[in-house]
Amino acid sequence: MNYYVCLLQEGVSSIPKLIEKAYANNYNVVATSINANMVPFEPDESDPTYPATILSAMDWNSKVIFTMSDVDVDSPNVKLRQHAKEVLLRDVAWAEHLQNMGSVMVRLRGPENDNLAAIVRSKTKGNWFIRVPITNPDLATFEHRKDATAEEVAQAESNDPWSWWNNLRIAAKYSSKVKVVVELNDSDRPSKETVRRWLGEPIEAIIIPSSLFVRNRSNYCVLKKEWQLIIGQFISVRANIIISTNPKDNALSQYADYLKKLINENCDTHVLNSYENMLEIPLQPLSDNLDSYTYEVFETDPVKYKLYQNAVQAALIDRVSDEEAKSKLTVVMLLGGGRGPLARAIFNAAELTKRQVRLYIIEKNTNAIRTLSNMVKTLWANKDVHIFSKDMRDFSPPELADIMVSELLGSFGDNELSPECLDGALKLLKPDGISIPYKSTSYINPLMSAILHQNVCQLLSTVPAFDYGYVSLLKNIYHIDEPKALFEFTHPNRVEKIDNTRCKVLSFTVKKDCVLHGIGGYFDTHLYKDICLSINPLTHTAGMFSWFPMFFPTRPRTLKEGQTISIKFWRCVDATKVWYEWQVVNSPDDWEHHNTCGTGYNMRL
Amino acid sequence: MNYYVCLLQEGVSSIPKLIEKAYANNYNVVATSINANMVPFEPDESDPTYPATILSAMDWNSKVIFTMSDVDVDSPNVKLRQHAKEVLLRDVAWAEHLQNMGSVMVRLRGPENDNLAAIVRSKTKGNWFIRVPITNPDLATFEHRKDATAEEVAQAESNDPWSWWNNLRIAAKYSSKVKVVVELNDSDRPSKETVRRWLGEPIEAIIIPSSLFVRNRSNYCVLKKEWQLIIGQFISVRANIIISTNPKDNALSQYADYLKKLINENCDTHVLNSYENMLEIPLQPLSDNLDSYTYEVFETDPVKYKLYQNAVQAALIDRVSDEEAKSKLTVVMLLGGGRGPLARAIFNAAELTKRQVRLYIIEKNTNAIRTLSNMVKTLWANKDVHIFSKDMRDFSPPELADIMVSELLGSFGDNELSPECLDGALKLLKPDGISIPYKSTSYINPLMSAILHQNVCQLLSTVPAFDYGYVSLLKNIYHIDEPKALFEFTHPNRVEKIDNTRCKVLSFTVKKDCVLHGIGGYFDTHLYKDICLSINPLTHTAGMFSWFPMFFPTRPRTLKEGQTISIKFWRCVDATKVWYEWQVVNSPDDWEHHNTCGTGYNMRL
Repeated sequence: MNYYVCLLQEGVSSIPKLIEKAYANNYNVVATSINANMVPFEPDESDPTYPATILSAMDWNSKVIFTMSDVDVDSPNVKLRQHAKEVLLRDVAWAEHLQNMGSVMVRLRGPENDNLAAIVRSKTKGNWFIRVPITNPDLATFEHRKDATAEEVAQAESNDPWSWWNNLRIAAKYSSKVKVVVELNDSDRPSKETVRRWLGEPIEAIIIPSSLFVRNRSNYCVLKKEWQLIIGQFISVRANIIISTNPKDNALSQYADYLKKLINENCDTHVLNSYENMLEIPLQPLSDNLDSYTYEVFETDPVKYKLYQNAVQAALIDRVSDEEAKSKLTVVMLLGGGRGPLARAIFNAAELTKRQVRLYIIEKNTNAIRTLSNMVKTLWANKDVHIFSKDMRDFSPPELADIMVSELLGSFGDNELSPECLDGALKLLKPDGISIPYKSTSYINPLMSAILHQNVCQLLSTVPAFDYGYVSLLKNIYHIDEPKALFEFTHPNRVEKIDNTRCKVLSFTVKKDCVLHGIGGYFDTHLYKDICLSINPLTHTAGMFSWFPMFFPTRPRTLKEGQTISIKFWRCVDATKVWYEWQVVNSPDDWEHHNTCGTGYNMRL
Repeated sequence: MNYYVCLLQEGVSSIPKLIEKAYANNYNVVATSINANMVPFEPDESDPTYPATILSAMDWNSKVIFTMSDVDVDSPNVKLRQHAKEVLLRDVAWAEHLQNMGSVMVRLRGPENDNLAAIVRSKTKGNWFIRVPITNPDLATFEHRKDATAEEVAQAESNDPWSWWNNLRIAAKYSSKVKVVVELNDSDRPSKETVRRWLGEPIEAIIIPSSLFVRNRSNYCVLKKEWQLIIGQFISVRANIIISTNPKDNALSQYADYLKKLINENCDTHVLNSYENMLEIPLQPLSDNLDSYTYEVFETDPVKYKLYQNAVQAALIDRVSDEEAKSKLTVVMLLGGGRGPLARAIFNAAELTKRQVRLYIIEKNTNAIRTLSNMVKTLWANKDVHIFSKDMRDFSPPELADIMVSELLGSFGDNELSPECLDGALKLLKPDGISIPYKSTSYINPLMSAILHQNVCQLLSTVPAFDYGYVSLLKNIYHIDEPKALFEFTHPNRVEKIDNTRCKVLSFTVKKDCVLHGIGGYFDTHLYKDICLSINPLTHTAGMFSWFPMFFPTRPRTLKEGQTISIKFWRCVDATKVWYEWQVVNSPDDWEHHNTCGTGYNMRL
């Protein structure tokens, strides 16, 4: 992963020299005033600060973050406000002249930011980095002031800088060019929940003041354990690092080297990182065939097939005693053979338990059949294995199965129609036959994620994006409350009239002021007895990456700490399709009812 | 530039081994039958050819071009046609299983390709490479058959493979996933015009049969000069190389190395290559300010400012004799100073001619003024130079100019409103004062370019794309005929009632059957006496890159060799804007009249 470590210094007389110093000390970006060199505080000041030619266009774009004049365009004082606007607009014009895709940074001063938002929206090139203190700076001053009243403290606590940012980004219409830069300070360490909430925002970077560093016994600049943990969390959601210090500081390289070490320790490296926060519209489970690339990705899961193998092993031992091992044949039916990974797990299980197994592989994808057939001819030439190129619902078996093995589960458990498929395959199973897996449960919880919301909005031009559920590797999210169990399905389902529709309301408590952007969806499944797979964040199977969570969007609404929100979820079935509907049902008013009649996301039968 | 050299061999038994051999001989891609290993010619053949697992998904996508079964889905014989469709659809399904963004290649057999086009349109992943012989293969056979009648030869000549491709791409709706692969053959060398016409197509690669190589005196495989030139032309428009040979050939590395050398010699390396075939909507010349990046790019032009300097030098010498050199001051007015390159050229000219110059720089971009002011303070502290932050039309000069210097010309000459600006600046000039430049002329010609047409169509969702003129670095184009002069403007224009509207019809002769996709636009300008700048392809100033040509799109129509087409062009002016209109006015029917009333592309006054 490419993180940058940026040196932020004000009062600089030469930007090229600052860059030189920063590079010599292992920084790769600098941040400094756009009016470096001198400060023409009059907006119509004609004197130059520096010519455009001191850096090349490429350097202006890639090496410099401009900090804008620290003026209050939302001041209640008309004169001050007017002057501030002129100064900031002049800075914007100069920034747009120098940078195409570069970035400018501006500091929030309080909750009122409507004029700033208007200026933010008017700039068409590059990004805005919005600098926000992680906690209200007033709180820090109280640490030194023993005379602060409880009322003053309470007021400062309620004036939460996150809400300053929230007001601005709403006024700036969730523009993807507007990102937040969270500024730490040495006098107040934020609570865990405060940090977690910021992870649901489009974090560009965190600012670490050099005063956060302490000297260790070897006289090196280091961070205390508590700060390491906080900064590590930001790094894990791809926040870059900005070190803020004064021009005379001579420990610059120690800070940069220390942070680069911290980045290496905390950056979440995995091959799927390009999927983070992306929204994928799920495939049609019955009509779309997987391609070879998708099979290949799933086959590399280091955990899933091992757990399936353990489950089949345990089932074989339970069904066939050691005495019968040589004589008793267990018929296993694999529903959906793909390119063979589960077949391999079943053969491994038979070999390890020394049980006799006859394996029927049913697979509807004729392309996968080519590869399976080749495996039968080469790898499994001496096995009792039979391939059928069929939809499992239409398959007439030559004999009934002791064990039915399948991996038909989607990110939300039943969303790839495993209930319908396994119900349809019931006729393949002996009366005492078992299904691996035998139970699956879906889970949901409310989420804040500005980036996912932006991505949903971008899809609006092509699909009714708020009526879709998406598969997404959730990264920049805040769990407003913990996941709770939603729908459960068990197999085999031998009730006479099977009903796979469901409806349930779950209530959650808002842990901190935030915005609801949607609902996270997860599942766990019991393969055999207590052998489980889970993508529920509370119980996630370690190392397993076969399933990303789901995300069901809602229209954004700001929530207050302590508030209860109730989410109603439906699983609906008609003759041709299965779909979900969802709605926040908060008294006194219900929010939008999503995906009514399955007009958006649905699974065709 | 990243070209690939691909090894095309059929009758291969193992694709991994073919890749190994190709890599060992300096190829980076292979092309071979999708049914390598064996040929299950029955469409419902269930026997595998090879399993998907012999290569990783990444290799299937990046190292292999599949050649599809060579069946005739447009055969007049119903049974053959039906069978061919089933075979090809099976191949497509297998290709889509193995490849996400990979490519398949199919051979055209004649002018009828409607069924093939339907299959091409139905494949959603990856690219189609359409293999087309550069000339009709029948012609080649006549070389050996002395008994061919003149009629047979004429018929083969009229059955032009380019038209096979043209029919297919029209039926495939100009999909950007469909590219052409032109196959050379050793018995018939194509004419220059035949080669040039292919350059207007979306060329993916050329196929060079190994039989095209001859042994030189050192027994190395080389190509004859004539073939080198032809292949070099294809390389210059980014065509990749496919070497077609038989599995027993043992000169493989010689071909690859030879072609890599040829690529190095012919590939057009320049820093602006990412702009090739891209369409840029021109800026508003009066209201949009250039940014620092754009200034920087233009300032690096190695030719333009030198020619301006030469022009000013010549003008200074003409206006001030050697005797007067020390005493007579020449007032130069620079209209549009930017970041100073023309001012530098003017000071250089003054120094070289030892003439006394007072320079007024007028610049409306307040951001550029910052840099200019700094230059005045530092570089030009001892010069007689004065900066005015003004629109030249509103500028009241302290004295009148001997020489007015400007670079207000756009890619189409007058399209950045230089006539209007220079007319407005006439009041700054002495009665005998001169303008550098003093004349500009626009040029047009008809073009075929499938890629530019695709790019225009992609813009249709956001703008009325056929009513815009674009700035474009034309690369994959075919000049249907040579450019001719359109509109001329001279400066200073001292006529009493200036009329800057124009209208003219120009006629062109179609050199070869082709498709008209639009009109190329160019200009040349006389700076002083015979010192010129030109982007007319016939007279292009060597090394100058400050202007890309313009492209005015038309709806595609197939044209026949020898046909005359007449293009009517208007320059229109009203109180608020200037715009062009264009129309092909071919009897008996006029084609679409583009940009009526300037509702699309226009320049605001």
